[in-house]
Amino acid sequence: MLIVQKYGGTSVANLERMRAVAERIIKYKKEGHDIVVVVSAMAGETDRLIHLAKQIISNPPPRELDLLISTGEQISSALLSIMLYSLGYPSISFLGFQIPIYTTDLFNKARIKEIKGEKIKNELYQGKIVVVAGFQGVTEKGDITTLGRGGSDTTAVALAAALKADLCEIYTDVEGVYTADPRIVRNARKLKKISYEEMLEMASSGAKVLEMRSVELAMIYKVPLIVKSSFINSEGTLITEEDEEMEKVLVSGITYSRNEARISIYGVPDRPGVAAQIFGPIGENGIIVDMIIQTARPDGKADLSFTVPRTDYKQTLEIIKEVGKTLGAEKVEGDDKIAKVSIVGAGMRTHSGVATKMFSTLAKHNINIMMISTSEIKLSCVIDEKYTELAVRALHEAFQLENEVYIKEEN
Amino acid sequence: MLIVQKYGGTSVANLERMRAVAERIIKYKKEGHDIVVVVSAMAGETDRLIHLAKQIISNPPPRELDLLISTGEQISSALLSIMLYSLGYPSISFLGFQIPIYTTDLFNKARIKEIKGEKIKNELYQGKIVVVAGFQGVTEKGDITTLGRGGSDTTAVALAAALKADLCEIYTDVEGVYTADPRIVRNARKLKKISYEEMLEMASSGAKVLEMRSVELAMIYKVPLIVKSSFINSEGTLITEEDEEMEKVLVSGITYSRNEARISIYGVPDRPGVAAQIFGPIGENGIIVDMIIQTARPDGKADLSFTVPRTDYKQTLEIIKEVGKTLGAEKVEGDDKIAKVSIVGAGMRTHSGVATKMFSTLAKHNINIMMISTSEIKLSCVIDEKYTELAVRALHEAFQLENEVYIKEEN
Repeated sequence: MLIVQKYGGTSVANLERMRAVAERIIKYKKEGHDIVVVVSAMAGETDRLIHLAKQIISNPPPRELDLLISTGEQISSALLSIMLYSLGYPSISFLGFQIPIYTTDLFNKARIKEIKGEKIKNELYQGKIVVVAGFQGVTEKGDITTLGRGGSDTTAVALAAALKADLCEIYTDVEGVYTADPRIVRNARKLKKISYEEMLEMASSGAKVLEMRSVELAMIYKVPLIVKSSFINSEGTLITEEDEEMEKVLVSGITYSRNEARISIYGVPDRPGVAAQIFGPIGENGIIVDMIIQTARPDGKADLSFTVPRTDYKQTLEIIKEVGKTLGAEKVEGDDKIAKVSIVGAGMRTHSGVATKMFSTLAKHNINIMMISTSEIKLSCVIDEKYTELAVRALHEAFQLENEVYIKEEN
Repeated sequence: MLIVQKYGGTSVANLERMRAVAERIIKYKKEGHDIVVVVSAMAGETDRLIHLAKQIISNPPPRELDLLISTGEQISSALLSIMLYSLGYPSISFLGFQIPIYTTDLFNKARIKEIKGEKIKNELYQGKIVVVAGFQGVTEKGDITTLGRGGSDTTAVALAAALKADLCEIYTDVEGVYTADPRIVRNARKLKKISYEEMLEMASSGAKVLEMRSVELAMIYKVPLIVKSSFINSEGTLITEEDEEMEKVLVSGITYSRNEARISIYGVPDRPGVAAQIFGPIGENGIIVDMIIQTARPDGKADLSFTVPRTDYKQTLEIIKEVGKTLGAEKVEGDDKIAKVSIVGAGMRTHSGVATKMFSTLAKHNINIMMISTSEIKLSCVIDEKYTELAVRALHEAFQLENEVYIKEEN
């Protein structure tokens, strides 16, 4: 098999851990697999470099910042390659520009456009273990770019797709994908298998185990993805195409996010073009809106609430206060002490009653629902932040996620 | 003017010093010059990275080592560019592969083959200050190389040659080139001007202020070179083509080196091919021989002495003991407690008496001369290491180097 393995920053935090990683890679190599390894920077290194730049100026020029922070992965990939060599296994490390991994020129959050696989295939053919610096790429002009936080996951999946690898393994500091955050729910269960769609919804609603973009890529190119621990020898979670078994699971997991804030604007004219007037200036400032709820009132006006990343809360509030004046809004206010709790499951497509159970469970614990949003396989409620843990635990129990429960066939 | 400035590791050791460097660059920019800056890694960084690799294995694979250590200059050049930007001056930093600076594929000590100047000229034309990561290049295959210790000096001179710069300034932690090491000779005098040839001889015989290769390059491409302090505002030393004034100076400086060891092999057959038999195996092991002295004896045999870098002493002694057996030598022995003291001066070409004065000065202080070697403008004596300082001071005084002394016209 051709396997792409990705190791995160904590897995290569020091030479001792790097040695353990090298030994694991060699185990697979000995079994006869071809191995391509993607590494992140040693834990703390990227932050150290960003801090250096920000000591000079709070907004360093993005091109120079990418040149600076891409050294983190350059160091870890070279060291891992040296480690493999020291254990008797021929190895070669490549930077993004050497492969090349072509990206857009949006520095600090570039997107991969194309990966040339020939160089890597050549080295694999010669029996070498290929180590690739994650998180980085190069523009066609030859400038170094980085892919944004969690970018090494994306590098790994994109490489697996380009090389038509049989498997992409993401080694990290958790054992897999759980039915809920194990720090909050004691009896949270590790999932053996989950569909790309479910994983996407979980990632977008707060599960931090994988970067959304890497899951999207895996889904598009049908790359089987395994998330597992680099410290403990356990099975991990397989993320793959939906199968019959998955469809029979009503709810796969509960997620939460405390990274959002709510903004509300009351009493705006209920006519076409108003939404564009409100969300135009937000988008122009690069702020991403998540949930949007609009209610028409009997008096011909409308109330509008939406959520944005908490870090953008103040800026958004300023913008909307301005917009509110133009539109003659009655009131603009917001709240950054909110949480979004979500339930995700492929079975929701075909079964009703999930929403009711969610609402009644929250109600039973006196938790007020501020906003609701739904997708085909997800249901999210915005609640007061202080109820986060309570809500997650209550929902986990209500949907009996500690056990594998399949939907009963209805007659 | 187009000026290439090079700043060493101590000049950019931290953000505070980097700021001082940036301010100096801006001063030149304001005067209307086009500036290309070459930087070394922040002091200590290259050693830190090499130490990391050597903790894994004592001889890391050279290609991976170059990938690792080239990050030092990548970090300092990006930070300096960010610093210039923060002070309001548009700037862009380039790595070796981006320019590109093509080198041979001899990792860890690659040689520059070609530099493409277009990218840099383009950015200069747009008014930007161009920062270049020193010490690194790229092979035509796309592998990153480094140029060996002191390689950033070479980068600077090679860039100055490629860009046809008017001047190349090397900023370092000393104020210029002195008549002798100021730590040994109190009244050593800073030279205002010295010829490429003299500088080469001084560098090859122990003066550490400039890497030999950079002086060679400057000489070939006639790049005027200035060595000056990045901490003190003083004039520095200009290294340029020999002129009439220089010719009139008998001796420009005294240098010394404690990095050598002597090996002697006695009683070998005095016939053609013997020298090849002795020096063949040394060269094959990559050991560079400096001085060689051969004496024919009345009995038809010969004695041979030579010097090698002190770090290669033990290995060379082993090799020569083997060779000695094959040749039926009477004895093989060596000494690694030696020093080489040299006097350098363009005026030696046309004036005799320099050697006599050197020998008699050493004799006056009871310093025994073990070996002598000469070049057109240099005279070196190997002596017991413990007399190094005494010899340097005595010669400095004997040739009156504390003052500018010109050769008197002889009638």
